[in-house]
Amino acid sequence: MTANALPTRIEHDLIGDRAVPADAYYGVHTLRAVENFPISGQTLSQAPDLINALAAIKEAAAEANCQLGILSREIADAIGAACREIREGALHDQFIVDLIQGGAGTSTNMNANEVIANRALELMGHAKGEYQFLHPNEHVNMGQSTNDVYPTALKLAAWAGIQRLSGAMGVLRTAFAEKAVEFSDVLKMGRTQLQDAVPMTLGQEFGTYARMLSEDELRLAEAAQLICEINLGATAIGTGITAHPLYAAKVCENLSRITGITLITAPDLIEATQDCGAFVQLSGVLKRIVVKLSKSCSDLRLLSSGPRAGFNEINLPAMQAGSSIMPGKVNPVIPEVVNQVAFEVIGNDVTISMAAEAGQLQLNAFEPIIFYSLHRSLTHLTAACLTLEKNCVRGITANRERLRDMVEHSIGIVTALNPYIGYSNATEVALEAHRTGRGVVEIVLERGLMAPETLKAVLQPDTLTRPTEILVPAAKPAQ
Amino acid sequence: MTANALPTRIEHDLIGDRAVPADAYYGVHTLRAVENFPISGQTLSQAPDLINALAAIKEAAAEANCQLGILSREIADAIGAACREIREGALHDQFIVDLIQGGAGTSTNMNANEVIANRALELMGHAKGEYQFLHPNEHVNMGQSTNDVYPTALKLAAWAGIQRLSGAMGVLRTAFAEKAVEFSDVLKMGRTQLQDAVPMTLGQEFGTYARMLSEDELRLAEAAQLICEINLGATAIGTGITAHPLYAAKVCENLSRITGITLITAPDLIEATQDCGAFVQLSGVLKRIVVKLSKSCSDLRLLSSGPRAGFNEINLPAMQAGSSIMPGKVNPVIPEVVNQVAFEVIGNDVTISMAAEAGQLQLNAFEPIIFYSLHRSLTHLTAACLTLEKNCVRGITANRERLRDMVEHSIGIVTALNPYIGYSNATEVALEAHRTGRGVVEIVLERGLMAPETLKAVLQPDTLTRPTEILVPAAKPAQ
Amino acid sequence: MTANALPTRIEHDLIGDRAVPADAYYGVHTLRAVENFPISGQTLSQAPDLINALAAIKEAAAEANCQLGILSREIADAIGAACREIREGALHDQFIVDLIQGGAGTSTNMNANEVIANRALELMGHAKGEYQFLHPNEHVNMGQSTNDVYPTALKLAAWAGIQRLSGAMGVLRTAFAEKAVEFSDVLKMGRTQLQDAVPMTLGQEFGTYARMLSEDELRLAEAAQLICEINLGATAIGTGITAHPLYAAKVCENLSRITGITLITAPDLIEATQDCGAFVQLSGVLKRIVVKLSKSCSDLRLLSSGPRAGFNEINLPAMQAGSSIMPGKVNPVIPEVVNQVAFEVIGNDVTISMAAEAGQLQLNAFEPIIFYSLHRSLTHLTAACLTLEKNCVRGITANRERLRDMVEHSIGIVTALNPYIGYSNATEVALEAHRTGRGVVEIVLERGLMAPETLKAVLQPDTLTRPTEILVPAAKPAQ
Amino acid sequence: MTANALPTRIEHDLIGDRAVPADAYYGVHTLRAVENFPISGQTLSQAPDLINALAAIKEAAAEANCQLGILSREIADAIGAACREIREGALHDQFIVDLIQGGAGTSTNMNANEVIANRALELMGHAKGEYQFLHPNEHVNMGQSTNDVYPTALKLAAWAGIQRLSGAMGVLRTAFAEKAVEFSDVLKMGRTQLQDAVPMTLGQEFGTYARMLSEDELRLAEAAQLICEINLGATAIGTGITAHPLYAAKVCENLSRITGITLITAPDLIEATQDCGAFVQLSGVLKRIVVKLSKSCSDLRLLSSGPRAGFNEINLPAMQAGSSIMPGKVNPVIPEVVNQVAFEVIGNDVTISMAAEAGQLQLNAFEPIIFYSLHRSLTHLTAACLTLEKNCVRGITANRERLRDMVEHSIGIVTALNPYIGYSNATEVALEAHRTGRGVVEIVLERGLMAPETLKAVLQPDTLTRPTEILVPAAKPAQ
Repeated sequence: MTANALPTRIEHDLIGDRAVPADAYYGVHTLRAVENFPISGQTLSQAPDLINALAAIKEAAAEANCQLGILSREIADAIGAACREIREGALHDQFIVDLIQGGAGTSTNMNANEVIANRALELMGHAKGEYQFLHPNEHVNMGQSTNDVYPTALKLAAWAGIQRLSGAMGVLRTAFAEKAVEFSDVLKMGRTQLQDAVPMTLGQEFGTYARMLSEDELRLAEAAQLICEINLGATAIGTGITAHPLYAAKVCENLSRITGITLITAPDLIEATQDCGAFVQLSGVLKRIVVKLSKSCSDLRLLSSGPRAGFNEINLPAMQAGSSIMPGKVNPVIPEVVNQVAFEVIGNDVTISMAAEAGQLQLNAFEPIIFYSLHRSLTHLTAACLTLEKNCVRGITANRERLRDMVEHSIGIVTALNPYIGYSNATEVALEAHRTGRGVVEIVLERGLMAPETLKAVLQPDTLTRPTEILVPAAKPAQ
Repeated sequence: MTANALPTRIEHDLIGDRAVPADAYYGVHTLRAVENFPISGQTLSQAPDLINALAAIKEAAAEANCQLGILSREIADAIGAACREIREGALHDQFIVDLIQGGAGTSTNMNANEVIANRALELMGHAKGEYQFLHPNEHVNMGQSTNDVYPTALKLAAWAGIQRLSGAMGVLRTAFAEKAVEFSDVLKMGRTQLQDAVPMTLGQEFGTYARMLSEDELRLAEAAQLICEINLGATAIGTGITAHPLYAAKVCENLSRITGITLITAPDLIEATQDCGAFVQLSGVLKRIVVKLSKSCSDLRLLSSGPRAGFNEINLPAMQAGSSIMPGKVNPVIPEVVNQVAFEVIGNDVTISMAAEAGQLQLNAFEPIIFYSLHRSLTHLTAACLTLEKNCVRGITANRERLRDMVEHSIGIVTALNPYIGYSNATEVALEAHRTGRGVVEIVLERGLMAPETLKAVLQPDTLTRPTEILVPAAKPAQ
Repeated sequence: MTANALPTRIEHDLIGDRAVPADAYYGVHTLRAVENFPISGQTLSQAPDLINALAAIKEAAAEANCQLGILSREIADAIGAACREIREGALHDQFIVDLIQGGAGTSTNMNANEVIANRALELMGHAKGEYQFLHPNEHVNMGQSTNDVYPTALKLAAWAGIQRLSGAMGVLRTAFAEKAVEFSDVLKMGRTQLQDAVPMTLGQEFGTYARMLSEDELRLAEAAQLICEINLGATAIGTGITAHPLYAAKVCENLSRITGITLITAPDLIEATQDCGAFVQLSGVLKRIVVKLSKSCSDLRLLSSGPRAGFNEINLPAMQAGSSIMPGKVNPVIPEVVNQVAFEVIGNDVTISMAAEAGQLQLNAFEPIIFYSLHRSLTHLTAACLTLEKNCVRGITANRERLRDMVEHSIGIVTALNPYIGYSNATEVALEAHRTGRGVVEIVLERGLMAPETLKAVLQPDTLTRPTEILVPAAKPAQ
Repeated sequence: MTANALPTRIEHDLIGDRAVPADAYYGVHTLRAVENFPISGQTLSQAPDLINALAAIKEAAAEANCQLGILSREIADAIGAACREIREGALHDQFIVDLIQGGAGTSTNMNANEVIANRALELMGHAKGEYQFLHPNEHVNMGQSTNDVYPTALKLAAWAGIQRLSGAMGVLRTAFAEKAVEFSDVLKMGRTQLQDAVPMTLGQEFGTYARMLSEDELRLAEAAQLICEINLGATAIGTGITAHPLYAAKVCENLSRITGITLITAPDLIEATQDCGAFVQLSGVLKRIVVKLSKSCSDLRLLSSGPRAGFNEINLPAMQAGSSIMPGKVNPVIPEVVNQVAFEVIGNDVTISMAAEAGQLQLNAFEPIIFYSLHRSLTHLTAACLTLEKNCVRGITANRERLRDMVEHSIGIVTALNPYIGYSNATEVALEAHRTGRGVVEIVLERGLMAPETLKAVLQPDTLTRPTEILVPAAKPAQ
């Protein structure tokens, strides 16, 4: 070590002695992990929800152990104070372990234990590293194991992410719903399999996008419920070894109070300690959401295709020059980025499924990649919803004349005549219209298939876009 | 056509005339589809649940239209009678279209329309093909479109598959639960990250597998609820064009009565017609189930590894000679086949997600591959559960002595001493035990860390496998 | 057993005695497997390529052992004769084990060993089951293990599937290439991000689809080479236990001769026995193929959208009535089925990847699901290419006038003026054209940005669809 | 704007005017993108390979245009100088657009165009923003489009990532190979399906891991070749609009020289511009690599399981305390992190496949997520290989006595006796050994199945781990 090296303190673990920067709140366990897992460069500090969750758990545990008489009030209070500082944003830069890590989250738990211990030591008037007064494992981690702390922290962090996503989905849904009202009188051709089908309103189309979101918000809320079941008290494998018999109930009560979330303790802690089902299901619901959101965005791109050689039904707001070479080109850049986030979330779901499937015996060692993937899915999807709302949906306008024009020249309106002229006659009319380029109305009248006034009544917008009683006794029904 | 050609009748569609075998109940639309989609060789006839669902829908629709006065009683009755015959197993061989098909299920719907029409014609005393009396499109399909019939039929078929799966999961769960009771007194080492952890009972381990299934059964039941929302009445794109305003309510009521399932009509039929979310969610739940079931099967393989160079904790029943070359080898063939079904179900989930994401505008044209994949997931997984129960779990036995022996020689029991000697002391004991091959008890006593009688009390099986109060005031807690 | 029970013979395995139908060529091992794996209902008999591959291997092995003096000529000849009968199509119905099976393929290998042994016994004048004269394990399986026979058989079967796929891709490529020639003079608007971009010819567009296939055919051929490396001679785990030192070379030589494929023996048989890399890579190439083919089919659906409210650039041949409710509707049913096969192949790739990743130590026990998935990918994709060629691409026609019209009214042609008027000026022109609905030419001339004759020359179709020298010194380049 | 606001300059684009920080090298297009895509928080600056690739392309293009006489030497030189500065590491902090972006990479290309233009302006003695002297689109982007620049840049960046990965794989392979030599004399039981199989050496086992990597290095090199085919000269859609006819050849030559990579121009630029096949294939090969690497890591975890209740064949070096609760526990944390990276890479492959499949017509707009995913796969996998080598494989030791002991007590060695006593006799011996716990040798001698000296000779380690001639004429071969 050179003369001007930074001051250090010596810590000890099962590998041996190790110098730690003197001003670091983390300790030897954290440092080992940093050296072992230089994988993604994304550290715990970039997942503040997770850090806050760990701090909440540590405070709840210290308080529970104190209530049970096995941890002194002084230590419990110091731990609690340190945890509250962290939850207010302090010391997040001390969480330096890579999010992608081996060891089933032990390094994350130890990073928290060490930072909290050292801050609590300071608050008690001791120096960092004087673990004889307050020990990362023996006090901060008392009654706990990574195997109950880490999955519980992941759940609390996911909960926070879900709340933000849910809010973003609501914002986006509102924008779609407002467009549905704005476009409620705009008649257009509906399409199935990209082929002209039957008329509808543009308002109905946008209402669909709102409805999809509202359904998915319900599914998300259900998935959120599933992650409120925690396994604190399980300790190493779920048998509760080293934990006080009343600890699980106390810590759950404390943690609910601290976080404001109604948590419950899993009925079978051994099962809960090895089971990643709730994460798989949450990811599955995120996949469901993006599958539908991506479809909606593909629709927006399709409906705004053109302007002259495409559908050209709606206009997305121009947000940037579309091309470095094609002047004046405006591209659907916002829906495109949402599509891409969808592909990412679906890929993440495969990662999460594989990680969950690979669990062995009493633990799943692969929860770090589950969290890393879930975290990205939640944050990117939230961001995608918000930019879609703000930079796209809000500014969409309709090309009303073109839409009306397409309905009027459509062959698809012949479907409305089925109850009057029958499927076979209607097919002949459609084929002739397609062959000759003529209109359906003209051909029907020419063939004397319907009376002009009935035909006119049937083809009212009102009649075309909702179920309707047959206006006159159908000629066709077989006896 | 040669002299001895089979007799045919001529049918007509938008492409033109086409000879159909005279004794066929299917018609021209079905034949076109058979020629267009020679993909998998697996036909509708191999999915009887789907055929039965179509028949139920067609009967419910005919009855609704009759109730609304737009279909004659005679025709409705003939259709109903034909549908009931099909649901009793008749004419399934007439459903000859490939399960993998383009056209958003139109060919499936038309195959049903044609078979039902021709059988109903016979029941009315007409010849097959005399569609002037009863028409596949105008009467059997009245008030319907493939776009509401097909997804509704998929949901009913999935419902049937879910019921069978649920039953099979229950059977398997019971077997695991009975083993949990049988093994409730067998002490063993728990393992995390494949490393010796702390003691538990083999009964606790098997209880976990039962518990996982029971949770998943609940999730499956929730997913089943989501597919009870149908879109009959939507017709082409959800606007209900050609349908009577009261039709949607009537047909839903009829279909609920016929199937015995409490169905509801989706509140937004346009959204419901293009939304595959319920299928995505169902597949996601199946993925959740197999992720955990596969993990359980991997555990069984691991626990039975050996017999001499492995864990050798349990014995799976020998079901067949394991090797064509290695005499006497017995392999975990049943868990292995379950693992493989799990991989298949997870792959199917990707297929389903992609198909759902690819929907466009008012319809998802890719529902056939969604059904094909869901159908395989449901049936293979049901079969996997049943063979696992019958040919494996039922016959599992425990190597009790070996299990006990491993606990007694374990270093992991040192964890139980944490509250008494502290994490740091315990680490030193563990390291010495590992280095020297000596026992934990011996070293603790030698170092004078605990009184012999306390040590003995702490290491009771009872104490080791559940949360326990600290027996004597711990020496270690910092004040 | 009742009086009129079918006659049986008794066979024996490690489980005990078991009655086998007297006329069955399969034996006790096969029967056990049928009972253990009632999963998919799809049996080996539905994979004739696999059966033929097994027969080729067994003949090659018997001959090798005979050449090495450890199998009598009489037995080797009887085995060889039985194998040739099977490869000519005989006895395929005796392969009754489910394709999805546990046991790493042992049941498939034993099904082959038993059928071949019993047929060979007959050919030698013995009765079925008289294994003292010719034994399924000791003679038919001599020098072999499932662990070298099964993966080798999968490779030979995959080879056959690849040849058929390659042929189908060639047929499809030719159809696209012919359309490229047919449409070589049809000018149209190219699109990026669904927005009008710059002109091209429809021939160029179809040429792209042909080119993609030709590139993929090369990649497929490369993947085919990788599966020509076999591990016969490895026996149980690759150490070659029980095999003669010269066996591996002999059997490879024999098998190459019998199959006509140039096979090589893997340089490291232990590695080769546990490595599924070649299957993963093959599946990855199939995924690559379908990703691009699916994109081409989505393009066809997009280009043919309409007829009146879509792109309407090309017409796909009408193959069936598109709708049960919408008369005259023609849907892109063939591209749709190809899209779906693509989704299936991508899902299968996930299954295959998971199965390969789950291998343990000296063997991958999950090769059956790898084969099941690869087999479906290969056969469905081959069928998809053929129906796409025959029922779609061949009959595509172009709407030439509409295509020309869209180019003439396009704003995108302004890009061609960049070198003359600069990106900034061109942007202003484009914006004005879009705002006013006027044409680019008109605005450029009005603004005096280019001389009329230059403008005309630049906007020639020839000039627009390929790189061109700038016609006159550009006014704009900064000095 | 308040009095103390930062100084700005005004830039203009198709949306309108916009203030840009006066000292920023990026411009209005970059700023719009930053506002539109606040998705991942990971910016271009975190992908230096991509920035360097863009700089190389821009220099190559400027030089080509200068050589062709359509760009002045002064401008070309200024652009070249700016690009070289960037490739030396300057201005990377000016690349501020999110890696996940809509617009098919246009914002990435414009970020580069703007930074290079402004730095080049400075070098020419002008102020930033004085685009009348040197314009981001008209000069830096001359003859280019995002649609050829961006995919080419992705390929160059991927190339750099591949080289690093390849190096890391080589380092890891060497470590495995050295262990293979070190353990070449350590006899152990091989296992198939986790059941004891036949003997092998630990050196053979580790040699397998080395061999797998060496094969995968070849596959990676092949995939690297595929991405050397670029589409510069394609411009907007591949027709080369605005580019000089000789430009494509010149720019490819220049770029090869600048990068030192032998690049070739795609033979069909229209196809090349929309085809993502090379990325899909590259990702498929990465998937292949991780599938096998993950399996190797799972093996390491299995072989080191214990220490007392597991396989305990090898010891992984202790890298950190394994547990926050279980003292002295050492976990396989390094292989675990590699497993997780594998799951991530496989998930990324699904994302990439979906993005590639979703391409439409003349362009794939989803290349940004393809790059984002590939980039993570390449960098995380490289890091995983390096930590696995350094922190795990290098330090592995073998428990030689335990390994030998397991072979000696194994039943599996009976396989070696097949050629002498036949499969059926061997099965009986194995069953008796399993039932009684006695040794195979003892039972064979007791039953008089083999002469003691032959038996001893057959069971030599040398004989057991490779193919061997049968020592004496086998008694068993049927006549």
